[in-house]
Amino acid sequence: MSSKNEHILCILCKDQKGIVSWVTSLLAKQGGNILDLEQHSEEESGLFAMRLHVEDISSMKTLEQELKRKTPFQDFRFWIHSTLQKQRMAILVSTESLCLYDLLIKQTAGELPCSIPLIVSHRENLKPIADHFSIPFHYLPIDPKNPQQQEKKLDALLKKNQIDLIVLSRYMRILSKDFVISRLGKMINIHHGFLPAFKGAKPYHQAWERGVKIIGATAHYVVEELDEGPIIHQATVEVTHRHSIQEMIRTGQDLERKVLTQAVRAHLEHRILLVGKRTWVFHF
Amino acid sequence: MSSKNEHILCILCKDQKGIVSWVTSLLAKQGGNILDLEQHSEEESGLFAMRLHVEDISSMKTLEQELKRKTPFQDFRFWIHSTLQKQRMAILVSTESLCLYDLLIKQTAGELPCSIPLIVSHRENLKPIADHFSIPFHYLPIDPKNPQQQEKKLDALLKKNQIDLIVLSRYMRILSKDFVISRLGKMINIHHGFLPAFKGAKPYHQAWERGVKIIGATAHYVVEELDEGPIIHQATVEVTHRHSIQEMIRTGQDLERKVLTQAVRAHLEHRILLVGKRTWVFHF
Amino acid sequence: MSSKNEHILCILCKDQKGIVSWVTSLLAKQGGNILDLEQHSEEESGLFAMRLHVEDISSMKTLEQELKRKTPFQDFRFWIHSTLQKQRMAILVSTESLCLYDLLIKQTAGELPCSIPLIVSHRENLKPIADHFSIPFHYLPIDPKNPQQQEKKLDALLKKNQIDLIVLSRYMRILSKDFVISRLGKMINIHHGFLPAFKGAKPYHQAWERGVKIIGATAHYVVEELDEGPIIHQATVEVTHRHSIQEMIRTGQDLERKVLTQAVRAHLEHRILLVGKRTWVFHF
Amino acid sequence: MSSKNEHILCILCKDQKGIVSWVTSLLAKQGGNILDLEQHSEEESGLFAMRLHVEDISSMKTLEQELKRKTPFQDFRFWIHSTLQKQRMAILVSTESLCLYDLLIKQTAGELPCSIPLIVSHRENLKPIADHFSIPFHYLPIDPKNPQQQEKKLDALLKKNQIDLIVLSRYMRILSKDFVISRLGKMINIHHGFLPAFKGAKPYHQAWERGVKIIGATAHYVVEELDEGPIIHQATVEVTHRHSIQEMIRTGQDLERKVLTQAVRAHLEHRILLVGKRTWVFHF
Repeated sequence: MSSKNEHILCILCKDQKGIVSWVTSLLAKQGGNILDLEQHSEEESGLFAMRLHVEDISSMKTLEQELKRKTPFQDFRFWIHSTLQKQRMAILVSTESLCLYDLLIKQTAGELPCSIPLIVSHRENLKPIADHFSIPFHYLPIDPKNPQQQEKKLDALLKKNQIDLIVLSRYMRILSKDFVISRLGKMINIHHGFLPAFKGAKPYHQAWERGVKIIGATAHYVVEELDEGPIIHQATVEVTHRHSIQEMIRTGQDLERKVLTQAVRAHLEHRILLVGKRTWVFHF
Repeated sequence: MSSKNEHILCILCKDQKGIVSWVTSLLAKQGGNILDLEQHSEEESGLFAMRLHVEDISSMKTLEQELKRKTPFQDFRFWIHSTLQKQRMAILVSTESLCLYDLLIKQTAGELPCSIPLIVSHRENLKPIADHFSIPFHYLPIDPKNPQQQEKKLDALLKKNQIDLIVLSRYMRILSKDFVISRLGKMINIHHGFLPAFKGAKPYHQAWERGVKIIGATAHYVVEELDEGPIIHQATVEVTHRHSIQEMIRTGQDLERKVLTQAVRAHLEHRILLVGKRTWVFHF
Repeated sequence: MSSKNEHILCILCKDQKGIVSWVTSLLAKQGGNILDLEQHSEEESGLFAMRLHVEDISSMKTLEQELKRKTPFQDFRFWIHSTLQKQRMAILVSTESLCLYDLLIKQTAGELPCSIPLIVSHRENLKPIADHFSIPFHYLPIDPKNPQQQEKKLDALLKKNQIDLIVLSRYMRILSKDFVISRLGKMINIHHGFLPAFKGAKPYHQAWERGVKIIGATAHYVVEELDEGPIIHQATVEVTHRHSIQEMIRTGQDLERKVLTQAVRAHLEHRILLVGKRTWVFHF
Repeated sequence: MSSKNEHILCILCKDQKGIVSWVTSLLAKQGGNILDLEQHSEEESGLFAMRLHVEDISSMKTLEQELKRKTPFQDFRFWIHSTLQKQRMAILVSTESLCLYDLLIKQTAGELPCSIPLIVSHRENLKPIADHFSIPFHYLPIDPKNPQQQEKKLDALLKKNQIDLIVLSRYMRILSKDFVISRLGKMINIHHGFLPAFKGAKPYHQAWERGVKIIGATAHYVVEELDEGPIIHQATVEVTHRHSIQEMIRTGQDLERKVLTQAVRAHLEHRILLVGKRTWVFHF
């Protein structure tokens, strides 16, 4: 993304005639130049969505007011993001390092448009990785007598740091209903299985037992029901009877980090729209 | 496969020391030359398997007797197949033509070592394809008053034609328990979904509803429980929110035929071993 | 594609401010509804392109005149296609049947929006396939004393049948410069190698010699220089040292047909723009 | 690989009758147990190869002598490796970090059976990564007045450290003929293009210009001729006209690291045989 003051405008509404023309005329009136436009309308749901990448808008405020007040379209929802405003991302980890490394390497290389104010874990062993990338590591251990307390501290920490996006990078703890519901569409998890197959624990063991010839990984937004959230991205790789469970795990890890990092990038670039229980991911 | 008199020898037993040496010495004593050997032992199940492609065995009968009588190994099972003896394959179809075309095109090209004495269906519309490839087409309509009768006729027809392998090429009818159980490991089905996800009817509709980003197809041996048979082969392809259900179906059809034909080839080349609820597929 | 009178409008011009807004306003004035819009602008070439799928245009003639006369944009080129007007496609073949089968199966299934008035070959052996699909087969043998004459007859036949698109479905003859130049962007070839590697004859043999671990197939528009035309689509598949040249050929054939059919579909759906020596393929 | 004293035995010779039986009988005589055996014979070259993973050999010395002295087979070559003896690997880098990170992460996780006594570079910027993984980093700058001197120091350093395998992890310098020839089959390079297409510098730029729809990466043994060495592993990924050169580079980097790490693992596990200008890679 550019360092100039550009904007991403996303629109979601009931499919109706004339939306593209109305919106692009509004932009033209404000001097805006369209760098990129993608739209999609869907017969099954009757929905229309559009994502525009624009520059040179003379007054963003005026545009926003016109979109809000003058729209002739039903159920018209829109979101405007400045590409200058970097999102603040928190990463939650347990003990697996591969996904964490990938997120940090890619963010350092400028490929993930965000800042990472903190990494949080109930375990200490990934702290050296956080240190290497100069990111504050917060160790929040679980008190067996009062396990809920850790989540409260976590919640406070995330709020204090004004976190926009939480990434569960192989974070092996179940979060409470309240924690999840207040962050719908703001929390991405990587599941090391090809959802909806092999939900829950030990997906590679399940896959081995079933004798599948392909394994996968799935990045999704977290919802209350375990592993049922809207899928953002998936990838698969072939295995044979020669793959032991351990080799499935090793093979799958390369998938997991790729899938998670790509899903996070799509979110940070405002390319994902939540449409019911599904996602529309533009330019993927 | 060659037109010379070569043999495929498959062995499955508890993993023990010295099996490879004992078997290959036996072959050497009979003048046999090993063209290809693949073996695998598995820690999880404690099983050992080996597939040998051999030529120039002086006496197959002697070899067979020695394998049977002299084996020092526990649970020693073996199968010998002559590459000269073509299997007899029946194809069962409903109305979908793509998989059928592929099987017939590849068999005609000499890529599937089998004869196809008959194609059977409860519908008439694929008869012209059978005619084009000069294969007898048997139309066995369903009598709504006595639907079981069709399966009985089918059963008799398959027995009369001494069928070794039945391929369900998008055959959209449920077969009875008895029919299935008497043909375990001898009947291959193609499921147009990525098992174990999306079992049963309309897998593409299920996949669309769940919002998956990858769809798949699965070839498996038929067992009593629907879509629970040992998986032989799978393939996947990426989809996006742009794919309507119709486009998922169109995209998936190219997978289905590829997966089914490859699974059938593996079976005909004696490269599949049934190991519990899983398959070991050699040289895939 | 729908059977209603819808239109595809493609635009290619120097990237300038306000194109989307100007075009969509013009469409709105004519009552048009945008079913689908995709645009792309490229920094490297400074070009902008847009493809619109529209319905309900009150006067196509007026729209066309306004686009032609009133455009304020430099180098503004556009093309309008009615989805009702099926293109006429000719297929040229030699002896390989797989690609031909695939094109005919998919066209019969309604997946390729075209008519196929004729199949032409210098060999007779694929005639039964043409017959099976009820398509006229023209046998134009090569006279060794006057090999150029065949191309003249072919040229006349294609003109007489008002052919819009020529598909070289493993047509193993070199066409003359004149024949090619008069049909730039109107003739698609499938190369059974991963261009630009392995140009020319026997690409699988070349691939085997070089010891590659992946083979591919490439569909491209034919230009004067052999195998140098703009690439439309490619696909690859892994091979190992176990693949003999014959097995590479067998494995590759499944790629070739898939790649060719998808490239032909993209062309028939007006999704390809020729941009210099490259193609932009929308919604691929 | 196990921590027990197991051995890998690789054999390469002219294809002849009875090799498997002779070798496995020899192993049986020494009490050896075959954990894994893969063999391959090739009609095109007339060669036979076998890789055995064995345990419990009573006298390795006796086995070695018998293989050397008693072999009845022509051109019989063999190599024996103990799985206890870790190879010593050196990594040469310039400024790209992704491949380096991947090698170090996977080695730390125990997935690459080797020690890494040193990382060498003519640039200093990757030193923090070496430090993070506690591996000595040797900075050997280029003296513009005497550029050959750096290679001499490098050569001495590698010899002093008794290096078994050199990995060029995006090392952007050409090595001298002498340096290369003395290390044939002992030096692996990653080329960020799909060889044999796009040899030499800036393969992504070349790929963009040619308008390919798929890009790739290639790991190969280094030979005197640039980018002509025997290919060990390759992978590809689809791109579209939407990919700028920068996005091709970003997309390709994920391929490069995967391909390089897998090639290095195959080498360290003694799964690669050099057969003329090609490689046979077992169990890939």
